[in-house]
Parts: sequence; structure tokens; C-alpha cells
Amino acid sequence: MNKVINWGIIAPGRIARKFASDLKLVENANLLAIASRDIDKAREFAKEFGADRFYGSYEELVHDPDVDVVYVASPHVFHFEHSLLCLENGKHVLCEKPMGMNARQVMELARVADQRNLFLMEAFWTNFIPSFVKFRELVANGVIGDIKVIQADFGFKANYDINARTFNKELGGGSLLDIGLYPVFLALELAGEPDQIKASAIIGSTGVDETCSMIFNYPEKGIVANLSSSFLVSTPTEALIYGTLGTIKMHAQWHAPTRISIFKDGKEDVLKFDEPGFGYEHEIQEVVSCLLDGLTESKSFPLTKSILLHQALDRVRAEIGLRYKYD
Amino acid sequence: MNKVINWGIIAPGRIARKFASDLKLVENANLLAIASRDIDKAREFAKEFGADRFYGSYEELVHDPDVDVVYVASPHVFHFEHSLLCLENGKHVLCEKPMGMNARQVMELARVADQRNLFLMEAFWTNFIPSFVKFRELVANGVIGDIKVIQADFGFKANYDINARTFNKELGGGSLLDIGLYPVFLALELAGEPDQIKASAIIGSTGVDETCSMIFNYPEKGIVANLSSSFLVSTPTEALIYGTLGTIKMHAQWHAPTRISIFKDGKEDVLKFDEPGFGYEHEIQEVVSCLLDGLTESKSFPLTKSILLHQALDRVRAEIGLRYKYD
Repeated sequence: MNKVINWGIIAPGRIARKFASDLKLVENANLLAIASRDIDKAREFAKEFGADRFYGSYEELVHDPDVDVVYVASPHVFHFEHSLLCLENGKHVLCEKPMGMNARQVMELARVADQRNLFLMEAFWTNFIPSFVKFRELVANGVIGDIKVIQADFGFKANYDINARTFNKELGGGSLLDIGLYPVFLALELAGEPDQIKASAIIGSTGVDETCSMIFNYPEKGIVANLSSSFLVSTPTEALIYGTLGTIKMHAQWHAPTRISIFKDGKEDVLKFDEPGFGYEHEIQEVVSCLLDGLTESKSFPLTKSILLHQALDRVRAEIGLRYKYD
Repeated sequence: MNKVINWGIIAPGRIARKFASDLKLVENANLLAIASRDIDKAREFAKEFGADRFYGSYEELVHDPDVDVVYVASPHVFHFEHSLLCLENGKHVLCEKPMGMNARQVMELARVADQRNLFLMEAFWTNFIPSFVKFRELVANGVIGDIKVIQADFGFKANYDINARTFNKELGGGSLLDIGLYPVFLALELAGEPDQIKASAIIGSTGVDETCSMIFNYPEKGIVANLSSSFLVSTPTEALIYGTLGTIKMHAQWHAPTRISIFKDGKEDVLKFDEPGFGYEHEIQEVVSCLLDGLTESKSFPLTKSILLHQALDRVRAEIGLRYKYD
């Protein structure tokens, strides 16, 4: 493989813009091509971010022999279809989260990637952000002792629009799959697969969860996680981990933390972090490094983690009675 | 009835000391007698708080014709028995919370009090604290619009002692009945009886809940409450109510709030409150006023509220699989 990894992007939306901007911060990474069903959008995006090529269909992108890896940034419900399209045409894939609408879709993508010896990763950027990596390291090193309670929320007041991807069920709407997966990810990272999941949601008029509250219980480990997401109100969007020796807090917005406090022995130590970009450069760097090393999975966020994540999300949805047509 | 209400106290423990101290702040209230199974403790307590009489048995106290009302401050598991003893001997009762180990016990006490035309109230002091009353008024007046999410915790690291009332099941141990009832009370005050309750707990080696997480759901009202209690870790012990127009926060320790913040239109308004005592004088004042007015229930915290509270606690316990021998 060449020393520069050529990227293609499927669907130039809001998150793709931040991604493309951060991609410039990564060595050995080149944004080569953009595809949109609206070729004007693709052209504009390519021009703005200095990509050489643009396409009016995803098929053209995946047939471009110079594209090494595709970042799939379409709405949730298309992640499976578009990732599959890439894999079946020999492209490595970084797929925006959620990588599928359920664990079955994620496992199917993992199977195809494995079969074709292609790289596949869910774009769980938090996992690669240095401040979060530091946080995870502190907890793993026992700074707060044994974890007892995990508390994490993610809530913002979304503009109520029944056609927006946030609320529209056909577009995979609902707070859980959009932002609730962050608290779920955190619990899984810190405590693994829960023995028990209880959840309850406010299901709005469009049939999706507008607020989702979850309890993950680990009786053997003596850990409980109180998790929530909401499109209805702005909640602190903080994560607090209470241990036997102290508490660690990732301040808002904790999913891309810039400030971490450790409360221990009656005092607070604060760690501050600067980000040169939006925070996506770290996951991009991971993909580039993996591809240059000839790996088909990230060691830090392998497909087993995505499968675990989506199995947990499926269990939450079973609890709140939320089914999508893909189930 | 005489213009001064003569109080008796059953069981001079930690909370009875604060209560007796605050009783001095209330007009028309006189601490007349203390009863303990250990007469030395009763004597000491009576001396310290200026009570004229002390008894080495609860039976003697309830047969003292000059005692108007008894404050029952024994451990949880004895609240029913001791309140019943008082009522059956013609004494009005203020019973420390939880008033019973389950709703059945509370309903039985309510029935006996009603039958004998005696005053009975659960000592839910928070309900009467002026700062909490102000908070409730602000919410009722629509300051934050319609409530969408209620978030309240109560957690402290209790000394682990299997014989202490916190952990000992025979003494009614567990975080839910000790401190978890505060968040439950808050949700009921703000949103009423929940349509759905989901809960999950860490049940420790003594068989009681050391951490209890609860979700109360009100689909019709579009409200969800995320509630928790813990004896394992110190959690913020704050209450946040998120509404369509703003957020109101009762700062720690929210169950006897001294600071309330209203977040609205991008700014924070802070209300501060001073308490002359420990905060128990307000519930004492309520009892005295009711008795002087010849009422058998508080209008602000009637027995229907206690029954609703204990029915909710029973539902939580059913969810977490916690049964006491009284069930």
C-alpha cells in the first residue's frame, strides 16, 4: 500500500465537514474524493476541502481504484447499506456510529470485512481522543479504586422537526442511537457487558425515543451505571465515575472531554486538554496507522467492541419497546 | 386542647437529638418526656434538652396523660409497632420516615389514626422546609415550563458495618428506605404516581440494597425521572429539574436545600436560604399548628401522600427483588 492513504467520503453532511477539516491534521492522509447523490454538493465540498475528485453517486466513488478507505457519513439507516457497498467493492471502511441499526447488521458487516480481508471500524471518535484515553488510563490504574457507580448523560434540546433525522423514524431517529450510545459506550468500556439492563423512554409522536434512561447493573462486580440521553432538554452532558477511593469527572461535553477532575482525599485535581481540531483527527490517525500496518481492525476499538455496543443498544431498545424496520 | 403542645419522643438517637434541638425553636411546643429502653439514655437526653420526664419503656410514655403527641424516632423496622402503640393509647403521632416497611403498614396506621380521630404524619421534613416550598412553588408557577426530566440522587459512603441499621436487614437496612425515598418523594411531588417504574440495585452481602437506581416514567405527561441512592459512594446529592423553558437545581444537600439555581434565558439566578436550626422546626411547626387547629392530617403532607410514597417504594423493591419479613 502507498504511504499516503487516500480517503473517500460518502455523504457530505455536517459531521463530514468536521471530519474533512480534521483529516488535514493527519499525516499520510489525503482526502481524494467526495460522493453525494447531489453532485453539486459533492463539487462544493470537494472544492472547499481540496479534494481532487467528486461524484454524483456512491457507486462511482467505490469504483474509483485510487480510493483506499471510505468514511461513511450518511444518516444512520444507510450505514449498513453504504458500508456494505464499500466492502463489496474492496474498500476499507470507517463507518460513522451507529455502524448499523442493530447488532445483526454490525455482525454482518464484520463478517464481510473479515471475509474480504478489509479494514472496518466504527467511528467512535471518543475512544481515540487523548483526554479520554488518559481518563481510561487513570481509571484502569486504580486512581479512584474500584468503580462503584457510573453516571453519564448526554442531552440537548433538538429542534423539533418530524422530518429531521433526530425525530424521523424512517431515518433512524431517536436519542439512543444518536447520542445515548455515548453513555452506553462508557459503561461498556469501564465495566464490560452488563448482566442486567433496565431502561425506560419517552417515545414521542414520531415513534422514537425522545428521552432514554438506562440502568446497567453488574452485580458480580458491584457496579451500577445510570445512563441517559435526551433530545428534549439540555442536560449537563458530564460523566462521573465514583470509586472506592475517589471520583473522576469528565466535564461537559464529556464525549470529547477537555477537562477532567479527580476528586480524592478531599481535594480536586484538574487536567486540561487542548484539541487542535474538532477531535476527529485521532480516529482518522488510528485508521491510517492500521492501514499502513496492514491491520484489518483497530486494536483499541475492534469489531468485538462494536458488536458488544450494539448488542447493548439492542437490549435497551427491547426494554423501551423501540423497533426499527431493520429488526 | 391546651395552647402548648406537649411532645414525647420514642428512642433518643441521632435524629432525635436534632429534632429536640429544633423543637425549642417552635412556639407552643414543649418537649415533655423521653422514652428509651435504656433509662440512663432517656435521663441524659431529658437533662440535655430540658425535658421534665423520662421513661425506661415506651409503654410508660404512651400512658403519660400529659403527652399530646409522640415523635417516633426508633429504627425503621419499629416505626409501625411504635406508632401503633402510640395511636392505640390515644397519642397523636409524628413518625420518622419511612413510616412503615411497606404501604400495607402505612395504610394500617392511617386506618387506626382515622378510626381514633388522631393526628398522624410521616416526618418528611423536606416537604416543610421553606427553601423546598419555594422550589415547589417556582416549578408549579411554570418558571421552567413543562417538566421533561427529573434527576435526583442521594449518596454517601456509609461505614460498612453489618450490624448498623444502614446495612443490617433485620433493622430495615438498605439505601432505598433510608435515603432513596428522598428522590422518590421528589418525583411524586412533581409528577405524581408513575405509570412505569424500572429499578436495579446492588444487593450486598447483608441482603439489602447498597446502591439503588430507579427510572420513573410518565409517558402521558412526557416526563421521566432518573433517581438513585447509594451507601457506597458520595454522589452529588443534587436535584435538577429540566423543563421546556429552563432548569432548576437544588444544590447539595438538596433534601434540605440552602441554595437553588434557576437556569433560564442563558443566565443563572441563585436563591439562598438560611436555616436557624437543623431544618426540623418546620415539620414540628406543622404538627403543632395542625393539633392547635384540631386537624388529624397535614394538608401539605397528608396520609395519601405517604401511602403513594410507600406504594412507589414497594414497586421499586419488587423491581430490585428486595423483600423484608414484613412483606
